Amino acid sequence: MSGAPRTPKIPYGGDYNPEQWPEEVADADHRLFTKAGIDTLTVGVFAWSLLQPTEDTYDFTTLDRTLDRAAAEGRQVVLATGTAALPPWLALAYPEVNRTDFEGRRHGYGQRHNFCPSSPAYRRLSTALAGRLARRYAAHPALLAWHINNEYGGACYCARCADAFRVWLRERHGTLDALNDAWWTTFWSHRYTDWTQIEPPSALTEHWRGPDHTAFQGITLDYQRFMTDALLGCFVAEKEAIRAHSTNTPVTTNFMGMYRPSDYHRWAPHLDFASWDSYPPLDAPPTWPALAHDLMRGLKDGAPFWLMEQTPSTTACRDVNPLRRPGELRLASWQAVAHGADAVLYFQMRASRGACEKYHGAVIGHAGRDDTRVFREVADLGAELEAAGTVTLGARTPARTALLFDWDSWWALEMSDGPSRLVTYVDVVHAYYRAARVAGADVDVVPVTADLSGYDVVLAPALHLVKGEVAERLEAVAERGGTVLTTFLSGRGDEHDRAFLTDVPGPLGPLMGVRVDEWDTRPADVTHPVRLGDLDSAARLVFEIVIPRGAEPVGTYTSDFYAGTPAVTRNRFGGRGGEGWYVATHLDEAGTEWVVRRILDRHGLVGPYAAHAGVETATRVAPNGDRLLFLLNHSTQTRELSAHAAATDLLTGKRVEREDPLVLDPLGVAVLRLE
Amino acid sequence: MSGAPRTPKIPYGGDYNPEQWPEEVADADHRLFTKAGIDTLTVGVFAWSLLQPTEDTYDFTTLDRTLDRAAAEGRQVVLATGTAALPPWLALAYPEVNRTDFEGRRHGYGQRHNFCPSSPAYRRLSTALAGRLARRYAAHPALLAWHINNEYGGACYCARCADAFRVWLRERHGTLDALNDAWWTTFWSHRYTDWTQIEPPSALTEHWRGPDHTAFQGITLDYQRFMTDALLGCFVAEKEAIRAHSTNTPVTTNFMGMYRPSDYHRWAPHLDFASWDSYPPLDAPPTWPALAHDLMRGLKDGAPFWLMEQTPSTTACRDVNPLRRPGELRLASWQAVAHGADAVLYFQMRASRGACEKYHGAVIGHAGRDDTRVFREVADLGAELEAAGTVTLGARTPARTALLFDWDSWWALEMSDGPSRLVTYVDVVHAYYRAARVAGADVDVVPVTADLSGYDVVLAPALHLVKGEVAERLEAVAERGGTVLTTFLSGRGDEHDRAFLTDVPGPLGPLMGVRVDEWDTRPADVTHPVRLGDLDSAARLVFEIVIPRGAEPVGTYTSDFYAGTPAVTRNRFGGRGGEGWYVATHLDEAGTEWVVRRILDRHGLVGPYAAHAGVETATRVAPNGDRLLFLLNHSTQTRELSAHAAATDLLTGKRVEREDPLVLDPLGVAVLRLE
Amino acid sequence: MSGAPRTPKIPYGGDYNPEQWPEEVADADHRLFTKAGIDTLTVGVFAWSLLQPTEDTYDFTTLDRTLDRAAAEGRQVVLATGTAALPPWLALAYPEVNRTDFEGRRHGYGQRHNFCPSSPAYRRLSTALAGRLARRYAAHPALLAWHINNEYGGACYCARCADAFRVWLRERHGTLDALNDAWWTTFWSHRYTDWTQIEPPSALTEHWRGPDHTAFQGITLDYQRFMTDALLGCFVAEKEAIRAHSTNTPVTTNFMGMYRPSDYHRWAPHLDFASWDSYPPLDAPPTWPALAHDLMRGLKDGAPFWLMEQTPSTTACRDVNPLRRPGELRLASWQAVAHGADAVLYFQMRASRGACEKYHGAVIGHAGRDDTRVFREVADLGAELEAAGTVTLGARTPARTALLFDWDSWWALEMSDGPSRLVTYVDVVHAYYRAARVAGADVDVVPVTADLSGYDVVLAPALHLVKGEVAERLEAVAERGGTVLTTFLSGRGDEHDRAFLTDVPGPLGPLMGVRVDEWDTRPADVTHPVRLGDLDSAARLVFEIVIPRGAEPVGTYTSDFYAGTPAVTRNRFGGRGGEGWYVATHLDEAGTEWVVRRILDRHGLVGPYAAHAGVETATRVAPNGDRLLFLLNHSTQTRELSAHAAATDLLTGKRVEREDPLVLDPLGVAVLRLE
Repeated sequence: MSGAPRTPKIPYGGDYNPEQWPEEVADADHRLFTKAGIDTLTVGVFAWSLLQPTEDTYDFTTLDRTLDRAAAEGRQVVLATGTAALPPWLALAYPEVNRTDFEGRRHGYGQRHNFCPSSPAYRRLSTALAGRLARRYAAHPALLAWHINNEYGGACYCARCADAFRVWLRERHGTLDALNDAWWTTFWSHRYTDWTQIEPPSALTEHWRGPDHTAFQGITLDYQRFMTDALLGCFVAEKEAIRAHSTNTPVTTNFMGMYRPSDYHRWAPHLDFASWDSYPPLDAPPTWPALAHDLMRGLKDGAPFWLMEQTPSTTACRDVNPLRRPGELRLASWQAVAHGADAVLYFQMRASRGACEKYHGAVIGHAGRDDTRVFREVADLGAELEAAGTVTLGARTPARTALLFDWDSWWALEMSDGPSRLVTYVDVVHAYYRAARVAGADVDVVPVTADLSGYDVVLAPALHLVKGEVAERLEAVAERGGTVLTTFLSGRGDEHDRAFLTDVPGPLGPLMGVRVDEWDTRPADVTHPVRLGDLDSAARLVFEIVIPRGAEPVGTYTSDFYAGTPAVTRNRFGGRGGEGWYVATHLDEAGTEWVVRRILDRHGLVGPYAAHAGVETATRVAPNGDRLLFLLNHSTQTRELSAHAAATDLLTGKRVEREDPLVLDPLGVAVLRLE
Repeated sequence: MSGAPRTPKIPYGGDYNPEQWPEEVADADHRLFTKAGIDTLTVGVFAWSLLQPTEDTYDFTTLDRTLDRAAAEGRQVVLATGTAALPPWLALAYPEVNRTDFEGRRHGYGQRHNFCPSSPAYRRLSTALAGRLARRYAAHPALLAWHINNEYGGACYCARCADAFRVWLRERHGTLDALNDAWWTTFWSHRYTDWTQIEPPSALTEHWRGPDHTAFQGITLDYQRFMTDALLGCFVAEKEAIRAHSTNTPVTTNFMGMYRPSDYHRWAPHLDFASWDSYPPLDAPPTWPALAHDLMRGLKDGAPFWLMEQTPSTTACRDVNPLRRPGELRLASWQAVAHGADAVLYFQMRASRGACEKYHGAVIGHAGRDDTRVFREVADLGAELEAAGTVTLGARTPARTALLFDWDSWWALEMSDGPSRLVTYVDVVHAYYRAARVAGADVDVVPVTADLSGYDVVLAPALHLVKGEVAERLEAVAERGGTVLTTFLSGRGDEHDRAFLTDVPGPLGPLMGVRVDEWDTRPADVTHPVRLGDLDSAARLVFEIVIPRGAEPVGTYTSDFYAGTPAVTRNRFGGRGGEGWYVATHLDEAGTEWVVRRILDRHGLVGPYAAHAGVETATRVAPNGDRLLFLLNHSTQTRELSAHAAATDLLTGKRVEREDPLVLDPLGVAVLRLE
Repeated sequence: MSGAPRTPKIPYGGDYNPEQWPEEVADADHRLFTKAGIDTLTVGVFAWSLLQPTEDTYDFTTLDRTLDRAAAEGRQVVLATGTAALPPWLALAYPEVNRTDFEGRRHGYGQRHNFCPSSPAYRRLSTALAGRLARRYAAHPALLAWHINNEYGGACYCARCADAFRVWLRERHGTLDALNDAWWTTFWSHRYTDWTQIEPPSALTEHWRGPDHTAFQGITLDYQRFMTDALLGCFVAEKEAIRAHSTNTPVTTNFMGMYRPSDYHRWAPHLDFASWDSYPPLDAPPTWPALAHDLMRGLKDGAPFWLMEQTPSTTACRDVNPLRRPGELRLASWQAVAHGADAVLYFQMRASRGACEKYHGAVIGHAGRDDTRVFREVADLGAELEAAGTVTLGARTPARTALLFDWDSWWALEMSDGPSRLVTYVDVVHAYYRAARVAGADVDVVPVTADLSGYDVVLAPALHLVKGEVAERLEAVAERGGTVLTTFLSGRGDEHDRAFLTDVPGPLGPLMGVRVDEWDTRPADVTHPVRLGDLDSAARLVFEIVIPRGAEPVGTYTSDFYAGTPAVTRNRFGGRGGEGWYVATHLDEAGTEWVVRRILDRHGLVGPYAAHAGVETATRVAPNGDRLLFLLNHSTQTRELSAHAAATDLLTGKRVEREDPLVLDPLGVAVLRLE
């Protein structure tokens, strides 16, 4: 079984914890669910201590009641295995199960996401629970999907993990000679002569200066890969336990978008469908969640994903937790759909009475009211989704632009000493993503191993590590006549973050037609102008000094000792008009847009509404071939467009002819079925 | 025995460490004491290693000499038990006595305030020492009071404390079901099935994100209460050891004003009199120490307290330690008396030669001079206090305004995720205290359990938790015709910080006549205007959206999507003109003053000199019925008032008639006996 | 044997790690060395795991080849003992060898500079390796010098170090009574009754508030001295092992300039010559490395030192790592020579492929090119140094101004509570050093024990501790007619940082003719003007209130309650026109220059080019008596001077007459042999 669950409409609902509430509250809640068009409940995410009160006892009363009621009321359930937070008895009986942190401290019982992934007790008991649940509910009519664990993440540094790491390393490197070479252990006298000498990289070993400062990138990269695999191993084990009883129901776990600690590309093959929890940072622009949506869609080759969680109003865990303004929830929900979401779910259906998520926004607040602003907006959206029916389900994004996203590059770039710790990977990636999106291009965000043959444009910003055949595959894009862009701090290391013994940008050099002779860095408040046509872009942080080797300058530095040298170059590559673009510095927004729009223009990929600030467009093609254009007005002003084609707005039913006026309210949405 | 020591005048002096000095220095010091009017010495605060050089040996030579000399020279001694800093031999012999910190690290010997309150060795040896001292000095003619330990505080997280915590929890909650319910452990799978599963909340358990971030408020609140009680248990044990030999001499320990870790309201019943050490933060306004004085006075139902420590010149422990300007020491000392202090004591009489308080200000510096500015100011004040005699002793403050101060609310507000970590409890409390004080109202700062029947106005800012019958008792104030004010973030939880399953502000809702539908929060640099009459107050941090349920708007938001909705409301309550005021946002100083002055005005509580900026007034009524009005000019300008009544200034002996000019020098003080 | 190696020219080259590279890379590298005039290689710094792959096996193949090749190609080798980074097998076999950090955490294997100095296994194995190397290479024709370990530093807090500390204390203090008195342990009940009670001062004992906050300065000062001695003991043991086989070759270890943790004055007698690694902080003015050079020169009574490391281009370990601009490398290298360097070496000859120094600048980058900007500058400088020949070797600086630099004062000032943590020792020292240097004075930076009889001016800024006879020896300077300057926060403690029981500035009082009555401190953003002649200097941080006792005011405060009181004073002392100057506050740059220039002027020590901003001068007198004047233009403008004497520029061969124009290019250098 693979793919998301089949549903007659966009599933709508979210996390609900019946174990927290007496029956009369649950009754009232369900009445409100119906009122708001809620048809889907995620249940059991933190119910382990309820489901298994002692090692030898299980109690499914609450779950039985909840699923039966769902079935009776026509709701479907996403059933969680509940293994993301240990019950107290387990932590006491098997102290090994508690994590040892980066500082080397064995934890006591507390929090959630608190299990050591290498603990045999955890493995045994978590799979036993998952198996029991599968056996009991596989055939339940309310069951829609399996939700294993929750937001897998964090890391453990215990002796068991150290042992597992050594086994993992042996499998990966084969011999110590290979490992010593990969990690470049002649540096600082680190040549290992026995596998047992290897310790997890932590505050007590290679990371004296902190989590983002390692003495050896090789060991830290491998530990991050190992820890990804260790957590993934927990998932796979639970999935196998489920599959023993439930062979068809799709299985997922909820991801967290651009979450650095875990390489979701390693996870993706093991999920039936991707799902994720969207909590954009304070004041993030709309392209931030959009990038995350597209990254999640890219996990399964463009298949639709689920928006497993979002807040209907506020978060709680941040220093400042502003409200979603009126209309923002609807807009964000349709944005998710526009980018490929086939479900819209909330955390949480009802606010917890106690503990640290008490203040987290919920569809139903502590007072149980249905006359709050938030409930009204949720219910209105419920009705709208109901009306939309199946039209978007299973639709795919016909992007001709790809953006490479690479966890290894992220890790290497941010853990390394030099050139500048002020550069953050996602900021660079987002800058190029954003530029393509405001120009109206649909973008697939894909791993470096993805098939690139379908793209006209490939953006590879901050591609710090160049692994496998990626350079050759990028050259192939240009040989087909496509355009490839990369930037400063790309091509700096191989898969172990060893420098190439060639000019920077290493294997990307031939395609880019440049060599980088040296690189200057400056504090955050220093800018250097870069001339791009009529534009002076204020560049920051890193200033690579580029010597063209075939490329022509497109932009030049105009200050400091590198004034007059190229800051942006273009290299003709192959016989079909392909190009390699190199951006040697961190341009500002205007500069990045200038560059990316020129590239998109070459391929006719600038969108019809690119001139309208704040108006996002996204296309999906439905299984029946219908072409849907989502128009999302992120501004708080009305936007008056002129239709670029005849179409019908699925939300209003109104039809427009080409060049008809098309009005988007502040924060408004239209879903055009193009003709 | 209860109450402060009986003295013929305001005791004047402070901490002196004879064990640090050879006899000739001590001789010189005592001559200077006499010169400065010093009549009281606090002795032995850190003398344990001197008094008990080994577990089996005691040596009272230095104390004998010091007390005998005091008696001979007419000075009185506050005798400390010296148990706040361990001797090295004890820490080595009983490693259990060293604390385990929040990070789970067992400490080695060092520092002070370093004992585990659950250590049997500490309990046995500290009470033995206290008992020995009591037996030896109970009848000494110089003995004035007992000073147990010093600035009790901090916390321990060792296995012994964990055990004691479990015992404490069992007594408090009775059953695990009750505890699970109180802590809302259905959240995150925390249902405890055995008392031994419970660990102290620390960096290794529920506080991964730091001391102010807990996963479960319930456990953390209880640990803070437990730790308060554990330290208090040490105090009580020493007090009992003293009382075995010394039945009448009053016992105290020195508090620290608004000190978050320890709930002084739990301590208060066990002290004979309150005393505290005043070290206001850098650039604190004069209302800051005033609030602390009033809080300390409120510990014992308004009985006078002692100012046990203040610096004559500078602190040492801060990054920056400015001097008290000329005149500030006198002003601060009279301010303490104005608020209820019956003693004025310093830390320290003589500056230590070595260690970390070497630079702390002292009456006598390293050179032993009497011709320093500081010594002159100390001596001048000594003469002034001498002249004042008994007049202020035992006097009480006739406040008709109460301000509720609640450690549980403080803890809950600042440890919780959401809505905003930028709100700090004492800042909100101080804002309302300050507004009442600048309007000239005397204010009692009292626990939520206090008898409120004597007050016209009760201010309950940021009353985050509503425990017991406090809502009913606040309603009773309004029913009598009084006014009750509360603010944003009030009424959010019960005693375990569980949300009420009703509208915000929970049990305060009927009195306030509002429900809070939702709440927006913003970063510190964002302000939203609130219109209050002619005033635009710049509100910050939290913006609750209020739906009146009987209340009328007094002020309104004028921006964002809640423009036009009420930010301040007033609700008539009961049949005698009582009112409940709700302030839904963090108003600026002007806005807070505007609101509070309107309330005080209703009850005729605005003071006669409220128009004079920087002039503080405070009233005390002496046991003989004399009404004393303290006028304290905190500005550096001369203030020219017009007497509001006939009176005699006790410091100058000058009499004024009503409407006579009354001139206050910069930083000047007058103590008017009203006629 | 003492003194630096004898060489026919300034040794030029740097760290090279042949163990990292295959033979073909090494071949290419050596060709480039020749091209760049590289004649010296530092080899083996981190080669332990290569040289000794197991406890019982040594392998010198790589070293043999490297030294033989060097000899064959006419290069000389600085041979490192390689003991600064443990091999993994050693850490696993002897866990004791891993350090225990300030937080009390025993580390696992990782990083470098990772050995416990008290570990017997480390001592045995490190000296065995050093001995083996000495035996094998003592007579090798390429051997130029021994380089023990690398950048000794950091600290360990393990039980073995605790024991060694106790032994060290017993030797230093003799009795516990003496120790108790020195540390002033009557404070906070710390009187020790057994040596075993003493714990290293750490986060778990006396430093709860952090590394710079101790409860007892005495114990922390002693631990820093002990740890200096413990690391020095490692050095001495290796040196002895070398001397058993190599009796004449000079031995050094590379220091780090103003490196707080280790008192290099304790080390100096044990080195044959001083050497150091210069990595000035981001945006440091040129006087910063100059101060470090002069401090290093002062270690061996003014004998030349070696610049053992500098980067040819960038660092890697900082958040931001800017490039050295064109010309800066040359200028910095000549500046080192101007201040007494007899060698110019780089870290590193070839950039590492992997690990945390991959991005550190190197003469040869990853691509192995000789057509980079950096390689060209390195090669040009190589040619220039070649041409310079022997002329500067062994030359000494004829300074008549001394500046006292005292690690004890540094430690005490920055670890103490009060008066202000915003004052940093090196900032104050640098301010006075800078003022003297911009006035054109050569400055010896010397320990407080140095012979001062040759100086006209002695600057003793922030001489926090006054130890031994230093006060008397400063008085002797003034008695000879010289001038002594000291500042705020001087004379505050004895060698244990106990306050003197006299007026501040303690033993410096008679010479200064003042007493400091008290001291105000203010946050960093507050300035108070000080009037100095026509200048208003903006003073900051500390404002001492000075009462003259013979001194006359030179500058006065003009604000706050100390307006009109002296901020700078001058005291005539002795019969020969000597003076003591006291500066009571942290003047700004202009104020400090005003004061220092007046003092230098008295003694005719203002240099001939002091009026030219950015032009640094430094004098060295060659062994043959030639007087060399280095002119260093740190500005990016051309500077046109007029020669103050007839001279020949050794770099151009051009001769100038007195008053001839003398043009310095931007960042230009001239080395004038004066006639």
